[in-house]
Formats: sequence, structure tokens, C-alpha cells
Amino acid sequence: MKKIRVGIAGLGRLGKVHAANLAYKIPNAELAAACSIVPAELDYAKSALGVTETYADYREMLAKAGLDAVAIVTTSSEHCWQIEAALDAGKHVFSEKPLGVDVAQCRQAEAAVEHHPDLTFMLGFMRRYDKSYAYAKEKIDAGAIGTPYLVKATGVDPEALVEGAIRFAKTSGGIFLDMAIHDIDLCRWFLGSEATEVYAIGATFKHPEFKEAGDDETGIAVYKFANGAMGMVHVGRTAPHGYHVETEIIGTEGSIRISAIPEKNQAQLYVTGGVVTECVGSFPERFQDAYLTEMEEFVNCVITGRKPGVSVYDGTNSTAVGYATTEAWKTGKIVKISRAPFPEA
Amino acid sequence: MKKIRVGIAGLGRLGKVHAANLAYKIPNAELAAACSIVPAELDYAKSALGVTETYADYREMLAKAGLDAVAIVTTSSEHCWQIEAALDAGKHVFSEKPLGVDVAQCRQAEAAVEHHPDLTFMLGFMRRYDKSYAYAKEKIDAGAIGTPYLVKATGVDPEALVEGAIRFAKTSGGIFLDMAIHDIDLCRWFLGSEATEVYAIGATFKHPEFKEAGDDETGIAVYKFANGAMGMVHVGRTAPHGYHVETEIIGTEGSIRISAIPEKNQAQLYVTGGVVTECVGSFPERFQDAYLTEMEEFVNCVITGRKPGVSVYDGTNSTAVGYATTEAWKTGKIVKISRAPFPEA
Amino acid sequence: MKKIRVGIAGLGRLGKVHAANLAYKIPNAELAAACSIVPAELDYAKSALGVTETYADYREMLAKAGLDAVAIVTTSSEHCWQIEAALDAGKHVFSEKPLGVDVAQCRQAEAAVEHHPDLTFMLGFMRRYDKSYAYAKEKIDAGAIGTPYLVKATGVDPEALVEGAIRFAKTSGGIFLDMAIHDIDLCRWFLGSEATEVYAIGATFKHPEFKEAGDDETGIAVYKFANGAMGMVHVGRTAPHGYHVETEIIGTEGSIRISAIPEKNQAQLYVTGGVVTECVGSFPERFQDAYLTEMEEFVNCVITGRKPGVSVYDGTNSTAVGYATTEAWKTGKIVKISRAPFPEA
Amino acid sequence: MKKIRVGIAGLGRLGKVHAANLAYKIPNAELAAACSIVPAELDYAKSALGVTETYADYREMLAKAGLDAVAIVTTSSEHCWQIEAALDAGKHVFSEKPLGVDVAQCRQAEAAVEHHPDLTFMLGFMRRYDKSYAYAKEKIDAGAIGTPYLVKATGVDPEALVEGAIRFAKTSGGIFLDMAIHDIDLCRWFLGSEATEVYAIGATFKHPEFKEAGDDETGIAVYKFANGAMGMVHVGRTAPHGYHVETEIIGTEGSIRISAIPEKNQAQLYVTGGVVTECVGSFPERFQDAYLTEMEEFVNCVITGRKPGVSVYDGTNSTAVGYATTEAWKTGKIVKISRAPFPEA
Repeated sequence: MKKIRVGIAGLGRLGKVHAANLAYKIPNAELAAACSIVPAELDYAKSALGVTETYADYREMLAKAGLDAVAIVTTSSEHCWQIEAALDAGKHVFSEKPLGVDVAQCRQAEAAVEHHPDLTFMLGFMRRYDKSYAYAKEKIDAGAIGTPYLVKATGVDPEALVEGAIRFAKTSGGIFLDMAIHDIDLCRWFLGSEATEVYAIGATFKHPEFKEAGDDETGIAVYKFANGAMGMVHVGRTAPHGYHVETEIIGTEGSIRISAIPEKNQAQLYVTGGVVTECVGSFPERFQDAYLTEMEEFVNCVITGRKPGVSVYDGTNSTAVGYATTEAWKTGKIVKISRAPFPEA
Repeated sequence: MKKIRVGIAGLGRLGKVHAANLAYKIPNAELAAACSIVPAELDYAKSALGVTETYADYREMLAKAGLDAVAIVTTSSEHCWQIEAALDAGKHVFSEKPLGVDVAQCRQAEAAVEHHPDLTFMLGFMRRYDKSYAYAKEKIDAGAIGTPYLVKATGVDPEALVEGAIRFAKTSGGIFLDMAIHDIDLCRWFLGSEATEVYAIGATFKHPEFKEAGDDETGIAVYKFANGAMGMVHVGRTAPHGYHVETEIIGTEGSIRISAIPEKNQAQLYVTGGVVTECVGSFPERFQDAYLTEMEEFVNCVITGRKPGVSVYDGTNSTAVGYATTEAWKTGKIVKISRAPFPEA
Repeated sequence: MKKIRVGIAGLGRLGKVHAANLAYKIPNAELAAACSIVPAELDYAKSALGVTETYADYREMLAKAGLDAVAIVTTSSEHCWQIEAALDAGKHVFSEKPLGVDVAQCRQAEAAVEHHPDLTFMLGFMRRYDKSYAYAKEKIDAGAIGTPYLVKATGVDPEALVEGAIRFAKTSGGIFLDMAIHDIDLCRWFLGSEATEVYAIGATFKHPEFKEAGDDETGIAVYKFANGAMGMVHVGRTAPHGYHVETEIIGTEGSIRISAIPEKNQAQLYVTGGVVTECVGSFPERFQDAYLTEMEEFVNCVITGRKPGVSVYDGTNSTAVGYATTEAWKTGKIVKISRAPFPEA
Repeated sequence: MKKIRVGIAGLGRLGKVHAANLAYKIPNAELAAACSIVPAELDYAKSALGVTETYADYREMLAKAGLDAVAIVTTSSEHCWQIEAALDAGKHVFSEKPLGVDVAQCRQAEAAVEHHPDLTFMLGFMRRYDKSYAYAKEKIDAGAIGTPYLVKATGVDPEALVEGAIRFAKTSGGIFLDMAIHDIDLCRWFLGSEATEVYAIGATFKHPEFKEAGDDETGIAVYKFANGAMGMVHVGRTAPHGYHVETEIIGTEGSIRISAIPEKNQAQLYVTGGVVTECVGSFPERFQDAYLTEMEEFVNCVITGRKPGVSVYDGTNSTAVGYATTEAWKTGKIVKISRAPFPEA
């Protein structure tokens, strides 16, 4: 079995997850090189992951490491040019979400992907590869709920981690850009359509620091979709019980709900006060398996030439919707979303 | 123990529920008279409920039956003048929701209530008396979830009963006026504030008859409240699994969710295909106990002079919000809600 | 509508529940008389229930009160002679469980019932009238789980009420006689067969007072049934989360489980530590509706002449099994249960 | 990082799972050799797992493959001599459960383990490494439920796979030896004590083939433990909803229940008939992660010299209890279990 040689760019928290999966958990991949501007991350790649080729310069890694593919897990603002550079160098590309920090960047990445139709490009919307979400999609595609016409998506970070969110409130782009992109992608994916209109509001009741930074700690957005379907997204940062990601897809013949209780595992405690289900504490805990499954899918797509389920247009469109949502929230107005449809649509 | 003498006006489906409760289930009340324009309903009152005094004319019942109180369960458009007439005749009044079919009517009822401060008036928002909802309110008032800042309310009628809804689609006032009033009341009640702005959309995917009648089979509305809190209401008519009423109240220190699975009872079936929880099939089944509890509360308020938890202003304001929601949905625009605050606020 | 005149004997905690139901909640019954050896209970009957005829002597009530029926809610040791006396006086009889405190007493009651085939006799196994249990039986009778072959029944009293249990440990007859009779009845009812063999053990880990009194705080019993089916009963007194009654009926095509979480209502709290479901705190809370439903059934049986679902033999046989279980537990041996089958079997 | 070289013996269904984990999922291990008497399995090792050294003879693999450790996943009757041979050859040993097919064999393995105290030996009770079970143990060790005094363990295979069980009914050793060993181990593990007495019964209602083969399709066993605690095990083969493994550990201050609903994932379907949770279909699906975690633990123990949590005595004692349970079931008598306590106890 041939192993594809993958280089990783970026070894922060999520980079380490992807790197370890590539290094140890995916039979037909090897983590052949690592690139970071943080020396400690390169030391980590050497000592913990056994990577011998490390680079401080991304283009140098592309030129010298003999890679088949790169996994881009750098700061969001670097994604698009790194995607383009990798594709131009003939490498397959996996990029973490978001595709880019604005729509213009995303279009640059789109153009690069379109110029290299033979190379695999995949965006890291890992929720689609979570077994519960994949099961829901499979059931829906098999007709289990008829035609989906409403998605209600919730994504609330744990209060336990709110300090970090407060620290980045001024630069995060606001709650919708920072938090809602996965939920927007899920709405699009399950409904099979694109959002055309958005209304959004926010509130801050617990941590005034968000308001002071021009942000909100909770946001609600409602979407109309091109096919007449609707979406509802609720994002926040202060769930006391843990990391709460819940999604409901409602169709003409039934609905599917995922993680109404974001359980940590299958144990329940019967104690004074009641029956308690402990919840997952963070996104790496909740989506640990999904991060592996999506990377396996990327590697398999590279090997077989099959197209991944998540395309560059998913990145652009989710980003465009994120910006429109932010505009609606900031202006208090209904915002029309005019992004042209997918080329392939 | 003195029993208060109650006359019932209207003996349709819900009227029969209230009448039977008054006749048999409430120790300190007696069903002393019944009034209806439908002769069969008066026959029912005699034969099934043992009511000897029956009237085809409402004012005649007020004049002759020697009542302490009336329970008004007639067509919505009759509520307000009947409330006024009963109060002017010195009777305590329980009225089913909605208070009236428009805000002007509601203000007429408000004025009547204000003119008779010594008489008990209570509106039938029975959900507030359901044991799960009452428990939630008690927990919230005790601080269990901190300050509530978001209510997500869902009320979807069962597909099994959709034919009736289709039949009345042209005259129902639209999905929000017909379906959302309880959810709007819950938002107001749990948030302790009034809605100031609404955005609403709808969709029809299963039964085009709704669209043809100018209605929608599903609606989503988002509200801003005066205190900065938010509300989200989802109503519909096509739940295949049963009658789905679910409410989530989210606060700064936790949240409470009621009936994520609208279970019929506490049994679960483990059979081929999985583990199945059967659901309640209708609102009388779901709120059977609440209808009794609210009427017990009305009777106790009459006897003790205590003010009921649901006031006439709850009726006016929920109706005003329902109209504003309908306007938002019909026009596609954000609608400001300018209703003056409660007199007592 | 004719109302049947019922006299109540015994107005302790459960007697008050039955008395209030008869007085106020059952249209075709009236609470016509009350009997108690405790003067305060008779005062209660007068002041709270409006009963004018009160008696300190049971036979006097039978003779003078002009009753159609009696509801016996006295101390267990008095049940059987009171049943016999009432039947001999021509009254229909509802008796609380247990039928008697030993099998000899039970046979005395059986004989009385058999001598008066035209009178209604019903034993208060109220769990059968709980809506979840009744639903399970209906589903099973309709074939939803094939042939039932195993019942796993759990009944654990709340730790919050353990002091009372400790106080009566010496005189209660032991944990199985005191706690398991409902579970034994459920096994018999769902399996449609009689127990023929029992093995039982117990343990005391939290409150040594039980052991010191010759009792145990927890007991486990396993039963073979005549038709080859099996039963498992777990009883205890120290559930920290509340009153835990749970039953699982397993059949060839599926199983039904009732109250795996003995929820207080349909609300769930999402708070620091996880998602919490509060539980019922006591049997009156858990079976409030069932107590009413069983009494309605009794009254309806009296009026229509229909036989109640719970017979005197259910009382004798459950008692016989309770004694056999106690013998198995005390001796450490397997005990055969040789009770002759029902006359009607 | 040094990788330990592991040879696998046996590549049946479970062998393939372990082999793939060793080959691809465990950074500090390599699957260096494979041994099987089935040529197709060796072909599989070469083609699918990239193993170059394959052997038809187990002792030859031990002698020639330069291994640090072996993983024994052969037929149960071969485990003990293979354990001994490997230890004598200086290899660390992971063995699948059961340790041996009788207690005499187990003692042979015990002796070998005792002769090689410097070598790691670990038995494959993978449930202990499932995240829900490990969480329960951790909570219990931290005092969350006080002193555990009762374990109720259920393990029922899916009806969908019953044909295989019927085929092996004559040679399986009976339902308790074949099915209950994991549940027995869980009782011992959670209670921290050894069983001293057992009573067991069985029933066959769906597939008479089991009875004809001298087996039963369902079994119930009750255990007394040396410390006064109790265990209840229910095993079967006909769960229509899937693979049902559920365990409840009850202590003086609370209880923990694992998998009351053996959910396939976190999605629930709301469809006609109710709310449906689909269940796992087999043990490899349910314990997929646990198989990996236990092997990671074995490898880490080899590397660090730390003792695994599952010892050879866990194997002997669970087997001894399995035999005693079988004797109880076959004879209808209470059976005392006299196995001497652990050496280290």
C-alpha cells in the first residue's frame, strides 16, 4: 500500500489533532513534514510525532519536502494564499475552516481550485463526518424525513472556556463569523439549498466585556433559503453544562435531532437532586472521531481521485452567509444574500 | 365549605373539558348553569353533567342563574363583550384564550376589568399551570438558571389532525395568530418583559392548501424584548410523531427545557428498529391536568380574592404580538411593537 | 346519574387520598360516611371533606350509613375481617393492599368474596392503573412484544424517607413483605402466570439499623413461573434521587421499560455539572393519578357489574409469594411455592 | 520513539480488529508478525495489514519473529498454553478473554504469569476500557456513589445474529459461560469483591433449538459477594432492537447506569409512531473504541512496566464464577464458590 506524504502547516491546538491523526491513525498516510512559524511547534513535531522534516517557511516545505498533499491548519487569514500556493505546486490540499476571512479571499481559493481540477481540495467542516451527523444525512437522503424544510442549529461554547472568547472578542469578527460557520454549513448541507435572506439579533447578559468589545455573547439568526426552506441558528458562549452543539432537521415526514443532550458518554448518575448526564466539555472532545474521519476521507479521496463531500464553494458560501449575518446583526436590518449559485449547481 | 356557582358559556371540545372539571373535579365549585347557541350542547350539559339550568342566551344566564362566576369558552370573537357583560353583572370571569380577535376588542375587555377591580378575571393560558411549566417558572424564580435571556418555543400540531387546520386555513387569521399565542405568552412570562420587535417567515412544503389559502404550514418568528432578551417561536401543523410543544428557557447560569420528547407516558418500547417513545396526540391529552389546575386556581382566586397569575393584559399583549408577527410574516419586514407597557408595570 | 354511596374506613395518609378522590373527583360516587378509631381523622372528614356521618365503629357504619360500598384503607391486619363484614352486609368492597398480613387471612377474604359473587370486590394494586403501566399492558396484550418471558421490577423508596422505615423495621415483616408486593403483582400480571420457586438475598450497607432489626435495606429475589417465565425483583429503601419504581417486561419480540428515570415532570435542567432530571419524591406523588383511576374503575365496576381487573386471588397469591420470598431470604434456601392455582384458572 | 514489535495469533473477526489497531492506530506499536492456521488469514495479514512475516506455527513465530509481545486472539481452548509458551519465550502477552475454557487451564496460565513477574500480562476485558465504563469506575473510585453494593448487569445479543448462536449452542458451554463472563467481570470489578454463592435459572421462549441443544436463550443469575454485596446478571440472545449491554452500579450514595438505551449514535428520529433511537447492532460496533484503548493500554504497560488493570486472576476468577453459574443453572441448586482469594489480595 502506497502511503501519501502529507505536510502539515500549523501546529496549534487543532493542528496537533490533525498531525497526530496523520502520523499515527491513518494507514495510507504519513506525516512527512511540518511547517510552523512557532519554533516550539516544530520541536513538538519532531519529538512527539517523529517528523524529521520541519520548516519555518511554508513555500519551502512545498518546494522541498516531496509531498503529495498538505493539511493547512494555520491562522484563518493565511488559508487562501496557502491553498493557492499548494495547488500551484501540484499538492492536494486539506484546509481547516474557515476557507478565508472574507469573500474576496475565498474567491481567490475558488479560482485556484478551479485551475487544478485534478487535485483534491477539501475543507474541514468536520461535523459532516461525525457519526451522528453522517447518520442523519444518510437517513435524510434515504427519505426518512421526507423533504427537509427547516434546520434549527445550536452551537454554544462552554462557560468554562469563556475567558478565551472574551480575550479575542475585539478581533474575532463577532459572534456569527466566529461561531456560526459550522451551523450555517449544516443548514446548507441538510437543506440542499443556499440562503437568500437573513435577520439576526444578539444579546449580552452575563459578560458585558463582549458588548464593550462590540460583540455579543449570544446570537440568533433566521434564514430564508432559495428553495423556500428556513434555517435558525443560535450561537453563544456561556453554556454552563458544557459544549452544546445540537441540530434539528425537520422534514415533511419527520425530523431528526442530534445531541439534545450533548452527553459525555453513555453513563448517567442517579444522585441526590436527580439523574445527571454529564456533557462534553469542548469541541475537540465532541468531534474527536470526526476529525479523524474527515482526514481519512481526504486521504482516500486523494488516493482514489474521488471528490470530497465538502467543496471550496461550501467554504465561500458559508463565509458569505456569515458576513451577511454579521451585517444583519450590526445594522438591525434584513440582509439579502446575493452570492451567485455554485458553478456545479 | 361554600361552593361558588359557575356558569359555562360554550360547550365545544374545550368547553366540555372545562365543564366536566367544574362539575366533578373541583370541590369548591359547582357547575350551576350552561349556555350555548347549539341545542345539542345544552342537552349534553343536562344529560352528561347534570346541569339543570341551561340557556340559549348569554345575557339571560347572567341575569337569572344566580351565578358567582362564568367560564367563557365560546368562539374567540365573542369573548370580549361577554367578559364585559359578565363583569358588569357582577360575575367573576374566566375566559379561554385568546382574549379577543383584535387589539381593539382586547382593550374593551381591559377597560371592563379595570372598572371592576374587585372581581376576579383570569385568562386561560393553561400552559402556565402545567406541572412542568410551573416547575420551570418556580425554578427560574428561585434563581436556578440566573437571568433568563432567551426563550425558544415550539408548538407543532400533529399531522394526524391537519385536515381540520386546512379546512379553517382561510379564516384562522394565519398560522401565527392561530398557533403562536401560547408560545408568545410563554416568552413574555419567562422573560418578564414585552416584545418590541419581530421578524417572521413561513414555509409550506407538505400541504399546498395552506399556501393557496394565504397561510403557511410552518412559521418562525424572532423577537427582541424590551429588556434586551430574545425569543424564538416555531409553530407548525405537520408533526408526524404527535403534538409537539417544547420550550427552552436559557439563562445566564443554566437553561431549562420542557418536553424535548413530548412523551405520552413513561414507557419506552425496545423493538426492531430501536427504542421508541410514543408521543401525545393532541393538546387536550397533553394539557389535561393543566386545564384542571388552572380552573382550580380561578376558583381559589375567586374565593380568596387573590389575583390570578394571568391577567387581562397578558391577553392584550399576546394578541398585539400575534398581530405584529402576522404583519412581519405577511410583509416580509421587521415590525416594531409599540404597545404601551402594562398599567401596573 | 345515580351516585353510589361509599364509606371510607381509615383516614391515614393514603386514606385521605382515597377519601378526597371519592368526595370530589369521581362524578358517580359520593363519600357518604367515614370511619376511624382516630378522632382527629373523623374531624378531618367533617371539616375538609364535608362528610356528615362519621363512625368510630366499623360495623356500625356498615349497619347505619346506608352505603352501597366501602373503601378499606385501615391497618393491613384489619383488612380481611373488614372485607368479610362488608360483603356480609351487602356492600361492595374496595380494599387497599395487602389483602391480609398472612395467607390464612387472605383465604378468609377469598371465601367471603366467593360467597358474594354478585358484589364487586377490588384490591388496590394501583400501579396497574397508572397510565404507563396500563399502556404497557395494552401494548403487550396487543402483541407488541410477543410473549413476555421476563419481568425485571425495581422498587426503591427514597433515602429522604428512610427514618420512617427504620422505625418500623422490627414490625414491618421484612423488606420483601413490606416493599415487594406491588412488584410481585406486576410480575404475575405481566407474565400471566404464577411463581413456583424463589431465591432471595439481601444486603445492608448504609443503615445498620435494618440489620440490627433483623431486616435488610435492599433485597433481590428471582422467581420461576409456572409457564417457564422468570421474574426479578429488586427492592430497597435508600434511593438518593427519589422514589424509584421501574419495571421492564421482556418478550420474544421486544420489551417495554417503564420509568428508567422516574422523572418528576417533563422539564430538564442544563446546569453546571450536566443535564439534570429531577425525580418524584414519594409514592403518592408518583401514583397520584393511578389512585384516582383505580377508584373510578371500582365505582364503574360497582355500577355496571363488570368485574375489576384485580381480584381477591391477586391479593392471596401476591401475599403467598411475599411470604415465600421472605422465607427464601431468611433461610438462604430456594423455596418452592405450592399455592394452588386460581379457581378460575 | 521505540515501537514494540507485536505478533498476532489468530485473525478471525476480533483478531482482525486487534491486528488493524496494532498495525495502524497505535503509534508505539508495530504489527510485526501474524500467525494463523487459516491460510486466508495470513493472506489478509499480508495484503491488508502489510505484515511481511507470517507463520502457520505459533511456536515458530515466537522463536523467529523477534517480537517483544504477542496478542493472542485464537480459539479459547488454545489461550492458556499459548500464554505460557509466549511468557517462557520472554514475550509480553495480551490475551483475549476468556483466559481458558476451564479453571485448570486458567491456573496453568496463572502459574506462567507468576513465573514471569517482569513480563506484562493483560487479559482482554475490553469493557473496562470503554469510555462510559471507565468513567463510571473513575466516578465510583472518587466516591460519587458511596460504597457500591449491587451491580445489575445485562448483556443480550441481537436477534439479528441469533442463527450463529443456535449453530454453536451444543458446543458453546451454555449461555452463562458463553455470554456472562464480561458481566461477571464487571460485577467483580465494580464491587471490588469475589462472588461466593450463585443461583441461576434460564428460559427459552423464542428459539426451541437452544433448549434442544441443552442450552437456554436467556439466563438470570444472582450472586452473593464476599463483602456482602450482590450481583445480578441477565444474559440472552434475542434482543430485537440490537446489541444490548447495560450495567447499573448501585451504591450507598447513588448509582450509575450505563447504556439503558444502547444508542447507535446521538441522533433521534421523530417520525410516525414516536421518537426513535436506533441501537448498536453488535459488540464490535459497541466496543470499537474500547478495543483500541485496551490495546493502547497494553502497549503502554509493556513500555513503562506498569501493571495493567486486568490481571490473570481476573480471568481465572471470572471463569470459576462462570462454571459455578452454569452448575447452578444446570442443577437448579444454589452453588457455593470456593475459589481461594487472589494471591495479592
